[in-house]
Amino acid sequence: MRVVVVGCGVAGAAAARAALASGGRCSVLVLEKRRYAAYHPCSLIDAIAGDVPLSALVEGTPGAAGLEVRTATLVEEVDVGGRRLTARDLRTGGRVEVEYDALVLATGSKPHVPRGLRVEDSSGVFTLKTVEDAERILSACKHGSAVVVGGGPVGVEVAHALRRRGLRVTLLEALPRLLPGRLDAELSRLVEDFLRAEGVELALGRAAVEVRGDLGDVAVTDSGGATFRAGFVVLATGFKPDAALARDAGLELGSLGGVRVDDRMRASGEAVYAAGDVAEVRNAVTGKPMLALSASVASITGRVAGANAAGGDEAFRGAVRSWIVSLGGLRVGAVGLTEGEAAREGLDPMAATVTVQERPPFYPGAGWVTVKLVAEAGEGRLIGVQAAGRGGVDGLLNVASLAVLRGATVRDLLHFEHAYAPSLSDLHHPLHAAAEAVLRRMAHARRQGAEPAA
Amino acid sequence: MRVVVVGCGVAGAAAARAALASGGRCSVLVLEKRRYAAYHPCSLIDAIAGDVPLSALVEGTPGAAGLEVRTATLVEEVDVGGRRLTARDLRTGGRVEVEYDALVLATGSKPHVPRGLRVEDSSGVFTLKTVEDAERILSACKHGSAVVVGGGPVGVEVAHALRRRGLRVTLLEALPRLLPGRLDAELSRLVEDFLRAEGVELALGRAAVEVRGDLGDVAVTDSGGATFRAGFVVLATGFKPDAALARDAGLELGSLGGVRVDDRMRASGEAVYAAGDVAEVRNAVTGKPMLALSASVASITGRVAGANAAGGDEAFRGAVRSWIVSLGGLRVGAVGLTEGEAAREGLDPMAATVTVQERPPFYPGAGWVTVKLVAEAGEGRLIGVQAAGRGGVDGLLNVASLAVLRGATVRDLLHFEHAYAPSLSDLHHPLHAAAEAVLRRMAHARRQGAEPAA
Repeated sequence: MRVVVVGCGVAGAAAARAALASGGRCSVLVLEKRRYAAYHPCSLIDAIAGDVPLSALVEGTPGAAGLEVRTATLVEEVDVGGRRLTARDLRTGGRVEVEYDALVLATGSKPHVPRGLRVEDSSGVFTLKTVEDAERILSACKHGSAVVVGGGPVGVEVAHALRRRGLRVTLLEALPRLLPGRLDAELSRLVEDFLRAEGVELALGRAAVEVRGDLGDVAVTDSGGATFRAGFVVLATGFKPDAALARDAGLELGSLGGVRVDDRMRASGEAVYAAGDVAEVRNAVTGKPMLALSASVASITGRVAGANAAGGDEAFRGAVRSWIVSLGGLRVGAVGLTEGEAAREGLDPMAATVTVQERPPFYPGAGWVTVKLVAEAGEGRLIGVQAAGRGGVDGLLNVASLAVLRGATVRDLLHFEHAYAPSLSDLHHPLHAAAEAVLRRMAHARRQGAEPAA
Repeated sequence: MRVVVVGCGVAGAAAARAALASGGRCSVLVLEKRRYAAYHPCSLIDAIAGDVPLSALVEGTPGAAGLEVRTATLVEEVDVGGRRLTARDLRTGGRVEVEYDALVLATGSKPHVPRGLRVEDSSGVFTLKTVEDAERILSACKHGSAVVVGGGPVGVEVAHALRRRGLRVTLLEALPRLLPGRLDAELSRLVEDFLRAEGVELALGRAAVEVRGDLGDVAVTDSGGATFRAGFVVLATGFKPDAALARDAGLELGSLGGVRVDDRMRASGEAVYAAGDVAEVRNAVTGKPMLALSASVASITGRVAGANAAGGDEAFRGAVRSWIVSLGGLRVGAVGLTEGEAAREGLDPMAATVTVQERPPFYPGAGWVTVKLVAEAGEGRLIGVQAAGRGGVDGLLNVASLAVLRGATVRDLLHFEHAYAPSLSDLHHPLHAAAEAVLRRMAHARRQGAEPAA
């Protein structure tokens, strides 16, 4: 059988690999509109910071028995009923007709600029998604200053990376704190303090409404009429599924704009799967559809879609939305829901935040890590973990990720037996300390017969 | 009620904390024979290496409402039926009578020297358990060379630490490879290669039978008659439960020499609990009793024992034996069973070892990590993970620890969504790569209708 994959990003590549590995005899054709097959999108930020060369991020075309990857090939139309699609060869302009037995749509996401933000000129305004975007930003750095609009993970990373390059950087966020959709306030504050100490100017509670001017002198105006001028502007205002092809093919989209799929990553059309940023996936905690927009989830859903497209039977178990941002001296990330999100979901959260030593204080360079656990009152199901510190945060979040995915309780975390060496960690693991704090709060609430004040 | 804890090591301190935190009104008395309450046993090695000052490892007496810690107090006899014990004040020589409602024995472990090893003189022969042991070893370093007997975790750490101090070091191990009870051969080899490259001389397959001579010139003779001379000798031949007090009190010991307990950490006598190194705990994988001899397990079992002693109802869920050794440029550790152990347990193991990049190769300093997964054939229950690399090994083992404890399968690991930033990890996590390798092997075995050749 022939599996066709549209898009050679993380999800598409994972789907192709899984289809080839499925054991059934199948050939896989990947169609990618870029002139190169694959690149490392999450490393663009490190290229901007100067840690890795941008040229290293472009990958060669993957090769394997049974695999064909066609670059510079834009899929323009899918005939779901006829199991065929039409593409354009961007080098020759020629039309390409392709038949498939199963199709995986992995068309990814694209930068999203909110409607309320008017961009009058564009020569000094960038988003960050492709290698070319990073090239443009790098070449604009000579102008010495930048305004970054959007205080989510990408905005925070871009602002920090440009600052490390020596630019004067202002970071605008419409809400009154950084990473508002990703962290609760006490964790946001750690990021804000860190960025300020690194010399990034924060303009919080400032909704950008207009960008005007040309490269070298761009002005961002906020809803209060204040103006922020800089050599260029990076819009880090989020991403949205690149679902036009799916929509035009008649596939159902969800309310968040992504392709609607079931847990097999099957879209609404026969023999069509979707994976990665373009798909709406099930949130493992709430059970509701979400846009994960994450490489980790793209990799997992791509694998599931590819295996199923090749005749397998794999089920996606839901996304916990693990993420981490590494800012040199501060690593921050989370898994699952924040306390605020949990409350909005009606989940009756019980949370506690602890700041504990990373390892015994007599070790040189021993730092601190702040961990917030969010659990459901009652049984104490773990529904979210946020963490910030200088090191080890990724390992901690990875344990939390598995715990949340498997429905562990806060009490279960007390039984977590970590690999202990005092030069690496404290005997009392930060997850133990945070779990104990939540359990104390739960016990207190039980004694009070009511939820305690926060 | 009054809870008395014998021993202020990791398990005793955890028991005291848990009893105090139990919510019931209880007072806790901890009796410790040392002249100081607590110290950091796992940091002794770092003091020998010169990374931390030895003086920092001695802790002050913990203070808390309801807690009393008496140091220099040796418990000599327990009257289980009468719920009282007799101790000696080592400062005054006076006798101390103590009554209790519940007793937690956390008397720890002591160095074990096998019967087949004859030690003729002792001024140049050391073990490593206490701060005083480390002081003696440090002061012997001026003799410039050492023989370390025993290639387990402590032997490997001591040999490496002494080498870092500039000594000429020979490490003797009776079996033909290092860490034979802890790693399978392919992982042992990585440790052997590393230590050799660091300048440690390895004498494998050499069973020490005699140590003779005085500090400055000690000779170790092996079973083949070869002699290894050095300024001093460190016997790292293991530890055994310090269970004399429990045995004399009439409590049941298990076949491994530890106090027999149930999953509440209850010993055979009424109102007596045991925790930490002195207790035999249930292996979470095999269900059989084991000696964990690990600070992580001591902390968990101490907490369970203390909570139950204070009237709670906590159950220990079994030890997965997480451990890690950090040798600077190499971290190595494991969780659960090795392939060899699994086979000896009759568990029909299916294993695979992968060596993958720690992060994308274009990041400076990106290294490699070797991971071996051991699963049960059939359902693929994860029963062991071994890992070695330069960084991140502890985080990986911690995920594995939770997975093994919770009975996860190899397939479950493919759904593990890690917190991904390319400066910290590869998108394809080493556990994903290793899980895929095991699954390929399992699929191959199914197709063959038989186990594949290794």
